[in-house]
Amino acid sequence: MSYPPPLSDSEQDEAVELRPKFDAEGLVAAIAQDAETGEVLMLAWMNAEALQQTIDTGRAVYWSRSRNALWRKGDTSGHEQHVVEIRVDCDQDAVLLKVRQTGAACHTGRRSCFYRIATPEALTKS
Amino acid sequence: MSYPPPLSDSEQDEAVELRPKFDAEGLVAAIAQDAETGEVLMLAWMNAEALQQTIDTGRAVYWSRSRNALWRKGDTSGHEQHVVEIRVDCDQDAVLLKVRQTGAACHTGRRSCFYRIATPEALTKS
Repeated sequence: MSYPPPLSDSEQDEAVELRPKFDAEGLVAAIAQDAETGEVLMLAWMNAEALQQTIDTGRAVYWSRSRNALWRKGDTSGHEQHVVEIRVDCDQDAVLLKVRQTGAACHTGRRSCFYRIATPEALTKS
Repeated sequence: MSYPPPLSDSEQDEAVELRPKFDAEGLVAAIAQDAETGEVLMLAWMNAEALQQTIDTGRAVYWSRSRNALWRKGDTSGHEQHVVEIRVDCDQDAVLLKVRQTGAACHTGRRSCFYRIATPEALTKS
């Protein structure tokens, strides 16, 4: 699996082809957002293969940096993400998945990974 | 500026102190989301100083990887981000800012950086 290389600056911003700008590890950041509520659920990573499988299958597939392996969300936990829409940002180093989330996005069992609020003093749980 | 180090696994997930898990470049990912509409506006990066300035001042401050410098969003463009809430994810390698965005979040002049939809064939602009 390979994509055409990123273009420079404004050409990349206006490209109408997918030209992901992978980092030194070959990854782009991927944000998963609940398609209905708008809640941001999690941030994970995708390599070229994960991105292509996500586009082709409509299921969110990530690259697990801790396990060094493709990670089809929900295969173990049952907490699948069905992709409603995939967006890319201006320079194509980040993607935004709007998903229908089964159960919890977070491995802690919470709906979203962003369950703590940072204040100047500490973190509070919401 | 320094933070206590990340804890391991479930201790980190439940920590009630800010213990950012910076990557090899000393950065965490930062998602900016419109506090009112829920629209995801951009993804950028923060080092410890950017994160602390954001918490202390209520203005979004990022680390520009291209310029290798702190970047107080809006200082040049006028497109400031006023922070309503800061959340951190389970392992604290990503933060979510809920912001009031002045003007455009994207340097292309668009409200959000995620203005293209990926399809199996190409990108379309929304």
